[in-house]
Amino acid sequence: MRKNFGMKTWIYPMPVLILGTYDENGVPDAMNAAWGGAYDAGKIIISLSADHKTTKNIKLKKAFTVSFATIDYVAACDYLGIVSANDEPDKLEVAGFTTSKAEFVDAPIINELPMSLECKLEKITEDGNVIAEIVNCVADEDVLDERGLPDIDLIRPIIFDPAAAAYREIGEKVGDAFVEGKSIE
Amino acid sequence: MRKNFGMKTWIYPMPVLILGTYDENGVPDAMNAAWGGAYDAGKIIISLSADHKTTKNIKLKKAFTVSFATIDYVAACDYLGIVSANDEPDKLEVAGFTTSKAEFVDAPIINELPMSLECKLEKITEDGNVIAEIVNCVADEDVLDERGLPDIDLIRPIIFDPAAAAYREIGEKVGDAFVEGKSIE
Repeated sequence: MRKNFGMKTWIYPMPVLILGTYDENGVPDAMNAAWGGAYDAGKIIISLSADHKTTKNIKLKKAFTVSFATIDYVAACDYLGIVSANDEPDKLEVAGFTTSKAEFVDAPIINELPMSLECKLEKITEDGNVIAEIVNCVADEDVLDERGLPDIDLIRPIIFDPAAAAYREIGEKVGDAFVEGKSIE
Repeated sequence: MRKNFGMKTWIYPMPVLILGTYDENGVPDAMNAAWGGAYDAGKIIISLSADHKTTKNIKLKKAFTVSFATIDYVAACDYLGIVSANDEPDKLEVAGFTTSKAEFVDAPIINELPMSLECKLEKITEDGNVIAEIVNCVADEDVLDERGLPDIDLIRPIIFDPAAAAYREIGEKVGDAFVEGKSIE
């Protein structure tokens, strides 16, 4: 038997994306977003309400970073999603994060999160969604494997479980992708 | 020190979405997609090349389902992503899957995957991305918790690790979301 739940935004898994931006005075801000994903090769889409400070900053700077929330900063990353910089201008500091300017875009990298995407705004859709080019993926050398590629067990990203409103870690490897050597999309 | 990788479509985590469709003869098809996510409340966006049979079927039927790949069907779900129904018309059968018609849309539910979204095509973007309303979320009663909500430990969805081209399971709970009672987006 199956049970119907009607209209739900339940996707398994959902990411915990930390969006970093600068405002008109160069003050860094960050928020937490679960609604987004790959839009095309080298592109990302994020669903954002227009009233977020992040949205205003993205429109201003045409740039943002996406860092992946990690096990070591679960509560701090959750805080970024529940408090607005419109109400708490020092929210990054309150959360315990520090930032550095990204190398390729005018947006802050969060030093404590080991892997980030540097994104240039391509357009905002008619529905208000942000579509951006990923101009650079940057990772701490501490989270690279012996081949020099990002190692998910060292990054330790978290997952959002929408029905339970909980965060989960990544578990064991259960298989290889593209076993016949072709690419999925 | 940080290492730059340039333009990469690396998001942590990425989902393993199984898209179910019918063709003009009512023959079910399914494919595997990692590029997509929530577009807005009750909406999903998927990046799909125009040459997929799935894309043609979605345009024809204005409907599809999204099921979440699970630990028990890793190899079968991977197969759906590497073999096209254009080349193997019986790919669902070869993969070992059976289907039933979804209750609210003209698309197949994969019986072996316990949780699905029934989606109605809203539009295809100028870039070819599919945006759809999630008209129903449907889950096997076997994967519900004591409150009657989907339990991620019973669904057992898998995650796609893009840099390693591997599938991972969901790990332990590491925290609650919205600790201050507000919603993230």
